[in-house]
Amino acid sequence: MQENQRTEISTIGEFGLIKRLTEHIQIQNPETKYGVGDDAAVLDFGNQPTLVTTDLLMEGVHFDLVYTPLKHLGYKSAIVNFSDIYAMNGTPKQITVSLAVSKRFCIEDLEQFYEGLQLACQLHGVDIVGGDTTSSVTGLAISITCLGVANSTGITYRNGAKETDLICVSGDLGAAYMGLQLLEREKAVFEGQKEINPDFSGKEYLLERQLKPEARKDIVEALAKEGIHPTAMMDISDGLSSELMHICTQSKVGCRIYEERIPIDYQTAVMAEELNMNVTTCALNGGEDYELLFTVPLTDHDKVAAMKGVKVIGHITKAELGCGLITRDGQEFELKAQGWNPLKN
Amino acid sequence: MQENQRTEISTIGEFGLIKRLTEHIQIQNPETKYGVGDDAAVLDFGNQPTLVTTDLLMEGVHFDLVYTPLKHLGYKSAIVNFSDIYAMNGTPKQITVSLAVSKRFCIEDLEQFYEGLQLACQLHGVDIVGGDTTSSVTGLAISITCLGVANSTGITYRNGAKETDLICVSGDLGAAYMGLQLLEREKAVFEGQKEINPDFSGKEYLLERQLKPEARKDIVEALAKEGIHPTAMMDISDGLSSELMHICTQSKVGCRIYEERIPIDYQTAVMAEELNMNVTTCALNGGEDYELLFTVPLTDHDKVAAMKGVKVIGHITKAELGCGLITRDGQEFELKAQGWNPLKN
Repeated sequence: MQENQRTEISTIGEFGLIKRLTEHIQIQNPETKYGVGDDAAVLDFGNQPTLVTTDLLMEGVHFDLVYTPLKHLGYKSAIVNFSDIYAMNGTPKQITVSLAVSKRFCIEDLEQFYEGLQLACQLHGVDIVGGDTTSSVTGLAISITCLGVANSTGITYRNGAKETDLICVSGDLGAAYMGLQLLEREKAVFEGQKEINPDFSGKEYLLERQLKPEARKDIVEALAKEGIHPTAMMDISDGLSSELMHICTQSKVGCRIYEERIPIDYQTAVMAEELNMNVTTCALNGGEDYELLFTVPLTDHDKVAAMKGVKVIGHITKAELGCGLITRDGQEFELKAQGWNPLKN
Repeated sequence: MQENQRTEISTIGEFGLIKRLTEHIQIQNPETKYGVGDDAAVLDFGNQPTLVTTDLLMEGVHFDLVYTPLKHLGYKSAIVNFSDIYAMNGTPKQITVSLAVSKRFCIEDLEQFYEGLQLACQLHGVDIVGGDTTSSVTGLAISITCLGVANSTGITYRNGAKETDLICVSGDLGAAYMGLQLLEREKAVFEGQKEINPDFSGKEYLLERQLKPEARKDIVEALAKEGIHPTAMMDISDGLSSELMHICTQSKVGCRIYEERIPIDYQTAVMAEELNMNVTTCALNGGEDYELLFTVPLTDHDKVAAMKGVKVIGHITKAELGCGLITRDGQEFELKAQGWNPLKN
């Protein structure tokens, strides 16, 4: 009898697994314009393209209820999906919400979760249209699917970056990751104690970035207002390095980014120092920033340079040049996607 | 200090919980035609209405991997979503698939799951357009969202049943529940043994109904061909009683169904006898049949009576008459929704 083959998922990681599982999929319907491979799928049911994206969040992997209030969790669960729609240059419109809950949760807990969810939906003009509520024998599972529509300036995929394009990011990077480190440290300190009252003063921004991230609706709107149509765009959920390499691979180009141009908040730098970590590494590989990474034609330089909350961090090159980081002292390093990948653990 | 209130979910059950969490939701977008409360939400992005439905399946609650082959699980996960779209008189078009997997699973396991998924998609003309693959510290979680379009004969909601309408069901009921009982019994018998080879001869249909259910695309197509537009429709996933009461509540009507008219397969009856269970109770309250329950105007009687695989089991009455079952010996019982409800356990 032939032995059943058993290949561990960790040997190929999340992206390798998705590729292996989906590479044979053939699209059957003309309404399906773009399937697996971007922040959202693109469907065409009529007047304007429909976008669809989904996220599955698992207790113990994506969140820790020891330090995550349920209202914040509801808010964040919605935001991470909206972010994927904005990353396609779209506007989120509807979500479905599925929850699997154990007996540990009471009605009031779920009401708090929904409060956060509804707050995010109100701020982004999104309707909760359905879902599924069931039980779990273990932890909490949250699955949200978001539908959106493409903006009138058209969809932005990951595969449109061209040589000489400028690479831009919104906001600042690494703070959510530092927030997570801080929470994990305090959790360890207070382990076993009933009343947890750690002092987070001076680090509020890090906590906010981890527990209550925002989706950059404002940036997408500002780009439209300025008449800038990014050639490629995605949101930064796994880390700048990882996302930039996705854009370069799919666009068949290379890139150069400059360490000194990477936007980092003061609190992030202080915390990295405190933890004896390299702040650039945190900004490159720390996840959950939910900022937008996009490329624009060189001719849009003056426009993007004038935009509030956007920074030009480098440029697109020929594919042969690979993906590189130029450090403050002028050295060049190859970018590596060491992004936050739960399937590698 | 005020004590935090804690109300157990079991006090209100799944439907009560959904109502409590969603009753305050206000629809903000004109594109959202119908939100929470039917088999699928209805959105309008252009030429034809878009349908969206979602299901979250948790290991240990919805499936047991001891006796569920992963290929079958993939197939079933897709089918249960397609069934919701058919129940709106629609055609499924796309799904997103999210999986949370523990280290117990290898790549080959997930390939088997995808094989089943793709088989179901091919048979129903559905595209896999995206998803999320992540890790789980506990069991397997599967979240599928299905998009579909309304058929040209229009959407069928749960709320359109009218007095004197005929109540119809497709296929037969209770077999999937009997299949589950059988598998659970054999699992208990073989507990702790490595090689499990139970004898299922004569009970194949029950196993098939539990492990490889079908979504009734054929019935929806046949209804369109016969020019029958059901006044209300839903799929039977929680049990006939429960679903019929949903239709009656939402349509503000009552009903009478006849025990002798409820379609039950021979194997289901034999198995119920063997387990000393009342077969009608199994048909009324056993879940996972994925048959269609629908109502049609009395004037369509001859047409539905002639349809293969469809049975008229009763009729709609005034709301004041409540929901009743007429037994074989002419007695009348009030229908109760004792459907399969994991949140009540």
